[in-house]
Amino acid sequence: MQAEILTIGDELCRGEIVDTNSSWLAGRLWELGVVVQWMTSCRDDAEDMRRAFRDAAGRAELVLVSGGLGPTEDDVTVDIVAELVSAQPVVDPPSLERMQRRFERVGYTMTPNNMRQVRVPAGAEVFANSAGLAPSFGVTIGKARVFCMPGVPREMQAIFNESVASRVLAMAAGGERIAKSVYRVFGKGESHIDHALTGIVAGVPGATVHFQVVFPETLVKLVVRDADGAAADARLARLDAELRERLGELAYGSGDESMSGVVGRHLREHGATLAVAESCTGGMLGSLLTDIPGSSDYFKGGFIVYANEVKERELGVRAETLRAHGAVSRETVEEMAAGARARLDTTYGAAISGIAGPGGGTPEKPVGTVHIAVAGPHGTKHKHILWPGTREQIRRLACYWAMAVLLKELKTHG
Amino acid sequence: MQAEILTIGDELCRGEIVDTNSSWLAGRLWELGVVVQWMTSCRDDAEDMRRAFRDAAGRAELVLVSGGLGPTEDDVTVDIVAELVSAQPVVDPPSLERMQRRFERVGYTMTPNNMRQVRVPAGAEVFANSAGLAPSFGVTIGKARVFCMPGVPREMQAIFNESVASRVLAMAAGGERIAKSVYRVFGKGESHIDHALTGIVAGVPGATVHFQVVFPETLVKLVVRDADGAAADARLARLDAELRERLGELAYGSGDESMSGVVGRHLREHGATLAVAESCTGGMLGSLLTDIPGSSDYFKGGFIVYANEVKERELGVRAETLRAHGAVSRETVEEMAAGARARLDTTYGAAISGIAGPGGGTPEKPVGTVHIAVAGPHGTKHKHILWPGTREQIRRLACYWAMAVLLKELKTHG
Repeated sequence: MQAEILTIGDELCRGEIVDTNSSWLAGRLWELGVVVQWMTSCRDDAEDMRRAFRDAAGRAELVLVSGGLGPTEDDVTVDIVAELVSAQPVVDPPSLERMQRRFERVGYTMTPNNMRQVRVPAGAEVFANSAGLAPSFGVTIGKARVFCMPGVPREMQAIFNESVASRVLAMAAGGERIAKSVYRVFGKGESHIDHALTGIVAGVPGATVHFQVVFPETLVKLVVRDADGAAADARLARLDAELRERLGELAYGSGDESMSGVVGRHLREHGATLAVAESCTGGMLGSLLTDIPGSSDYFKGGFIVYANEVKERELGVRAETLRAHGAVSRETVEEMAAGARARLDTTYGAAISGIAGPGGGTPEKPVGTVHIAVAGPHGTKHKHILWPGTREQIRRLACYWAMAVLLKELKTHG
Repeated sequence: MQAEILTIGDELCRGEIVDTNSSWLAGRLWELGVVVQWMTSCRDDAEDMRRAFRDAAGRAELVLVSGGLGPTEDDVTVDIVAELVSAQPVVDPPSLERMQRRFERVGYTMTPNNMRQVRVPAGAEVFANSAGLAPSFGVTIGKARVFCMPGVPREMQAIFNESVASRVLAMAAGGERIAKSVYRVFGKGESHIDHALTGIVAGVPGATVHFQVVFPETLVKLVVRDADGAAADARLARLDAELRERLGELAYGSGDESMSGVVGRHLREHGATLAVAESCTGGMLGSLLTDIPGSSDYFKGGFIVYANEVKERELGVRAETLRAHGAVSRETVEEMAAGARARLDTTYGAAISGIAGPGGGTPEKPVGTVHIAVAGPHGTKHKHILWPGTREQIRRLACYWAMAVLLKELKTHG
């Protein structure tokens, strides 16, 4: 089955916002076994929209649309689709009732424009919007099934997951089931991972493997399709075991759990606490760790020690160490980690010192040089990295390595 | 003039990467006065690409293409375009020479596939790639001028700016000149800013105003077009003055300079230094401030004080204050700011304490409650915010408010 994704909005064609909806929908369709052949964006222009719908319905069996369902006069998706299926735009009573209740709760007075937002083409299959006001709907144009969703990403994703995905799957697979695993891999580049997984799905019916780079990690997705859900699950379980064996500890986690989430979970399970000491990352490691709700259970705090005098005074790094080895050195970062751990009386201390650039590099210590240390009850671990990226990439990579070194320590002494 | 943007790549249609090239090009074209009517993405498939090129050339006068210029067999843009203009793909000697020199420098042996990457359709207008290997080129298909660029964003942006933009401008404006200002606005939402600027370009020939939300700030762009460059500049200067008057200090900066860049510049100009104390943001404020190369000139460091005991021990927040008012209070955050300033002996101390959620809210202090304080030589400034967003948004907004309060203090006592 071939699909087309159509996103509608002046703001897209003026470059005011990046179209993340197309990419999100394309990824979900790929997982459901549907090939996306075209992705098209056009303005809120009736003539262009007519052409876009006709072209899409002429070449694809499935068309997913987002945008143009808002309350303003610019939002004409309902009108155009109604015209193309020779129906009238009509108010959807359940959506109107939901909107009225919602407005009453916040004391908002409905304007005539709000009524636009709860219309659908008469006769369409209607899907409630659990995350917003405008309902979604499905219609048939020519040989194509067309699903229209709002442009707000949160609303579109909710409606796709709740109502559209099952219908797409029924169309795509004729009852085929999908078994899927997502692995999060850190520590080697995509080409290394690709090589390590060469041939992993060869000879496994209905299985595919898929990579997505989200710097500095790589997501690896395994998908198995089969009419028999249990058979798909069984084949996926064998692939899961094979992937874990091939990637080893490079596959640090799975699903939606981020590196800071995995590290946090292990700290909590061990009843351990953590303090950080950051130089070139300036607080980014602490910020990543506290992205996780409930991180106060294990994260006590830390020190941003940008200036050398602060490294000495707050963390007890010795002036002699800084003089002999410099701020970016194994010796300094180990004293930083030990100092943070001692000062905040935590199980572990993690420290980062490096040259994030673009200035400040030397022949001995070029831009991209970073030293990392993790101090804990089983001694201090050190890691040296040299990665010639942008300032932002070097800082982010340093934070991930600090978490990876800590995670290995937690797993080793679990 | 109507334009179409065409991006090519299997990875786009599988949702592996978000298409930021289309948005970037659309924004640049908008500024050059060109309306983007369609944005299309297709796979690395010869038949689909033929159709995409033909459709685009049939409906647009300008077609900007990115992708499909790499060294692998999948990359067939040169072949398809050569076929459409009835030419042969030929090696571009200057590009070949550049590639050979580059490979020699790093001791890399050229493979036959590398030769693919320096081909162009015979007779095309060729543009050197200052940021990579594959040259770009311009051809005419039907009535459309078509420019093909690489898919790597850095390379595409360099080629567009260096070679394509001037040609587009010549086509679009027939010699029209563009005068442009970009303002960065923080402190109020888009609807407030929109209202404050109502009618600002009314009656000003060739002038437009344009908004882009990059949470938590809004970019406002003023553009004036005129055949006479001096006239465009003069009208823009009047609009600049009017905008500054209407927005006042909400327009904290202009151009590419971020909030942390503006704050850093003011600190440097004043010879002032800064320390931070962060609770709910966990280091994000320090991370934003040290995004700026050279920030060690004014940023000495700070304290991530997630646990209350750390607030007391490291910053000298009194146990009595925490007991009486709680960690998220004006009193606590003011002591945090004063403590950071005293401990690191800086001109200013900036502190944040809040409830970022999703848990931890109470009726008196709901999720989204944040207190901010800036301590300095002219006393301590306090700001209370309540903004019911996601954890990520609340933390980011808190950092921006801390910088905005500090910036106001720096401007007031400059």
